[in-house]
Amino acid sequence: MTDGRPSIDLNADVGESFGAYRIGEDEALIPLVTSVNVACGFHAGDPLVIERTIRLAIECGAAVGAHPGYPDLEGFGRRALAMASDELEAAVLYQVAAIAGVARALGTELRHVKAHGALYNRAAREESVARPVARAVRRFSRDLVFVGQAGSTMIAVAREQGLAVAEEAFADRGYLPDGSLVPRDRPGAILPGPAETAAQAVSIARDGRVRTVDDGWLELHADTLCLHGDSPAAAARASGVRAALDGAGIAVRAR
Amino acid sequence: MTDGRPSIDLNADVGESFGAYRIGEDEALIPLVTSVNVACGFHAGDPLVIERTIRLAIECGAAVGAHPGYPDLEGFGRRALAMASDELEAAVLYQVAAIAGVARALGTELRHVKAHGALYNRAAREESVARPVARAVRRFSRDLVFVGQAGSTMIAVAREQGLAVAEEAFADRGYLPDGSLVPRDRPGAILPGPAETAAQAVSIARDGRVRTVDDGWLELHADTLCLHGDSPAAAARASGVRAALDGAGIAVRAR
Amino acid sequence: MTDGRPSIDLNADVGESFGAYRIGEDEALIPLVTSVNVACGFHAGDPLVIERTIRLAIECGAAVGAHPGYPDLEGFGRRALAMASDELEAAVLYQVAAIAGVARALGTELRHVKAHGALYNRAAREESVARPVARAVRRFSRDLVFVGQAGSTMIAVAREQGLAVAEEAFADRGYLPDGSLVPRDRPGAILPGPAETAAQAVSIARDGRVRTVDDGWLELHADTLCLHGDSPAAAARASGVRAALDGAGIAVRAR
Amino acid sequence: MTDGRPSIDLNADVGESFGAYRIGEDEALIPLVTSVNVACGFHAGDPLVIERTIRLAIECGAAVGAHPGYPDLEGFGRRALAMASDELEAAVLYQVAAIAGVARALGTELRHVKAHGALYNRAAREESVARPVARAVRRFSRDLVFVGQAGSTMIAVAREQGLAVAEEAFADRGYLPDGSLVPRDRPGAILPGPAETAAQAVSIARDGRVRTVDDGWLELHADTLCLHGDSPAAAARASGVRAALDGAGIAVRAR
Repeated sequence: MTDGRPSIDLNADVGESFGAYRIGEDEALIPLVTSVNVACGFHAGDPLVIERTIRLAIECGAAVGAHPGYPDLEGFGRRALAMASDELEAAVLYQVAAIAGVARALGTELRHVKAHGALYNRAAREESVARPVARAVRRFSRDLVFVGQAGSTMIAVAREQGLAVAEEAFADRGYLPDGSLVPRDRPGAILPGPAETAAQAVSIARDGRVRTVDDGWLELHADTLCLHGDSPAAAARASGVRAALDGAGIAVRAR
Repeated sequence: MTDGRPSIDLNADVGESFGAYRIGEDEALIPLVTSVNVACGFHAGDPLVIERTIRLAIECGAAVGAHPGYPDLEGFGRRALAMASDELEAAVLYQVAAIAGVARALGTELRHVKAHGALYNRAAREESVARPVARAVRRFSRDLVFVGQAGSTMIAVAREQGLAVAEEAFADRGYLPDGSLVPRDRPGAILPGPAETAAQAVSIARDGRVRTVDDGWLELHADTLCLHGDSPAAAARASGVRAALDGAGIAVRAR
Repeated sequence: MTDGRPSIDLNADVGESFGAYRIGEDEALIPLVTSVNVACGFHAGDPLVIERTIRLAIECGAAVGAHPGYPDLEGFGRRALAMASDELEAAVLYQVAAIAGVARALGTELRHVKAHGALYNRAAREESVARPVARAVRRFSRDLVFVGQAGSTMIAVAREQGLAVAEEAFADRGYLPDGSLVPRDRPGAILPGPAETAAQAVSIARDGRVRTVDDGWLELHADTLCLHGDSPAAAARASGVRAALDGAGIAVRAR
Repeated sequence: MTDGRPSIDLNADVGESFGAYRIGEDEALIPLVTSVNVACGFHAGDPLVIERTIRLAIECGAAVGAHPGYPDLEGFGRRALAMASDELEAAVLYQVAAIAGVARALGTELRHVKAHGALYNRAAREESVARPVARAVRRFSRDLVFVGQAGSTMIAVAREQGLAVAEEAFADRGYLPDGSLVPRDRPGAILPGPAETAAQAVSIARDGRVRTVDDGWLELHADTLCLHGDSPAAAARASGVRAALDGAGIAVRAR
């Protein structure tokens, strides 16, 4: 599947609508990315949304992954919850199992797992959180790719567990000098628009570096770029990113 | 696996605890049955309870099944909920997928599916409810056994969908003359004790009939007998049933 | 407060956002109505949304009411749930109590209660559902106004319970010849736009009648008109209704 | 109401059952205490349980309080959740409002508020958690008593907010030398039986001190003693405590 060109995966968090509540622009976004992370019903999503989202991903040729989060619909999985290690491992295993099984019933295999929100952020820094997440993924299948923040603790822990990893960077989020993301409640958390997002995507994919919020540069190896479905004009950003990567000679494809 | 003797399966609804809340006597009951129906987290159960319950079932050699219900923890799945057909099908598929995936991670394959509570009761009578349940099971796997009330609409619908079925009768519940169960809020809903339960088990398994609440007899073909984990003295009942079946020369084994 | 002109109340269902999920156009709609029905957290809404919504209603001078529904966030309260009578009464009492207490902490008194979605629709037709709802309202306070579908069973039941009632009609929904609403999944359920909504509002408020979906006329006495916050262009509809009522010489005010 | 004798209040956390799930021994415990803290439906309890519990408290003459917790039924409110300050304040206000309103409908006034589980533990140590809890209580009513761990940050914060406080000690829990409780997952968390519980109650109420888990003594002023409803033999412990306090000449009454 490789043609010699440098390549990168584009992923998006999708399937975050719930019942009557709509979030994101999945219909517009999914055709533009190569991998999707499907919310599993704990922090977002419901069974019908999950099914429709996976169906759309299959139609669009995107690789299907699970996007497990804390069981906190009200907080959209963005609030840390002090789960015991065995509770967390079981919760991630359950979520991965549910998405994998629905995917299989729809004719595709689960390809990757990426934690959501506060679970992702904590696993990126804390071994005691990363470990149960990685263990759950490995117990479900050794063939799954573990997606996590580039260079973070969760990547190291997943490798130790013998999992293939995809290091993730963010085309539409601001970076702090230490490689972590600008928190959502602070200025610079979300890049202002499609142009900045496209430029950051190319910088990461081609040059392996990203401009930080204080105008420095950060070295960064990324296998996949995340485009947030709930950013303003998410689909416009994704179009811009694809066009810019294409213009820079970088292939966009799933791992 | 057959030895010429008549045989029957004994099943129990298990894994219904939730967080700090305990229900049932799974530790005592699971070793006494041959199939378990594991609550999936919608009307009862949580990921850690599910994992522990499946682990125990594997240790005890019981066949593992999924026990999907309405998404109504407060009502324990006993209150009918007017879900649209596609919502219901997706909800059942999700629940089956979750239990099947956790079971596989623990080293076993899902064998059967049995609806819970109000979903079971409605599917037993209403084609419009039975159909999405059976479709979800078939879409997940054509190898699953569909467990449903003996002689009911849900059995007919599952057969139409090409599924193998197990017709279920109840060793510990009272029967009305029309073959339906005495509702839980009426006298005679639960047989008074282990002796009556054991007698009813033998009557069903050996003679293919059951005494009704008005002292008539009802013809009944059953492949599996249900023992409720939340009945008073559930484990004592199960012991009594096994002993009585053994005394009557009936083998107890999963299908 | 009366000036001799005919008058009517305009009400809206508000506060239906939940966590990260936004629904409705409360900021635009609340200034245009005279009464609001605040979702209570069971089918929609959360504590912070409730507080912000009541605060906005107070600023805009709208009368604050509670909008209790079935405990079914996934179904947005639009799916009938077979709750026992005592469960339902307790659930409505709890929801009314929560909204009333938050309203009081913010400096206003709860004025009315209007059931939501499937609970409203069932209470409009079934005494066994209307009764626990009305009993809960009366037990909380005999000074609350019970809002219900004009001419329906729930109005009769509330009157029997000694409650003041407000009979409700819908400016933006299609009517069947028997006085019930066109179901949401059928054509004609929502009037096409602001002009039709405004015309229906005037017809009801001034003439006491409404054009049915089959082009007949239905006599209808209404104390309050509902404008749905989740209709397309909800705020534009509300503006249009207010302007049209004003043009027809009808005062818009809470009861 | 005072007769010159030293006195203390006995409180219990009650109403923690949920749907089909039973926890605690409320029927036996409530007659033995002078104040009850009623779970509000977020970490435990449901509307019908709340109503029945308050009714029983009224019959037994116990003062009714609200027992708000984190919105985490699966974790029984024992897992810290990173709620924003305004979310937490709104969540506590909502819970207090609900219990107060149901209590009023049943004929009594809410008397106190005590946070539950992880919320209690965090508020005992962290001003940023104690403050929104205390603010919510004060905004609901300046006449409520704020119950919190004796000598803790939450007591200081509540006093600053102008609230009357009741300092709480635990008759059935082990103490660390710094005045905090032995965590539930460690040995010594729950005193072994009724005798030890009764002795600790007298020691606190009469002597203002408690034996720590390492056999030292800790000075402790307490206005109220907590008896946990979910401890083994909760009712036996409560009886023992009452008898022991009586034998030591200490009156048991609500503040």
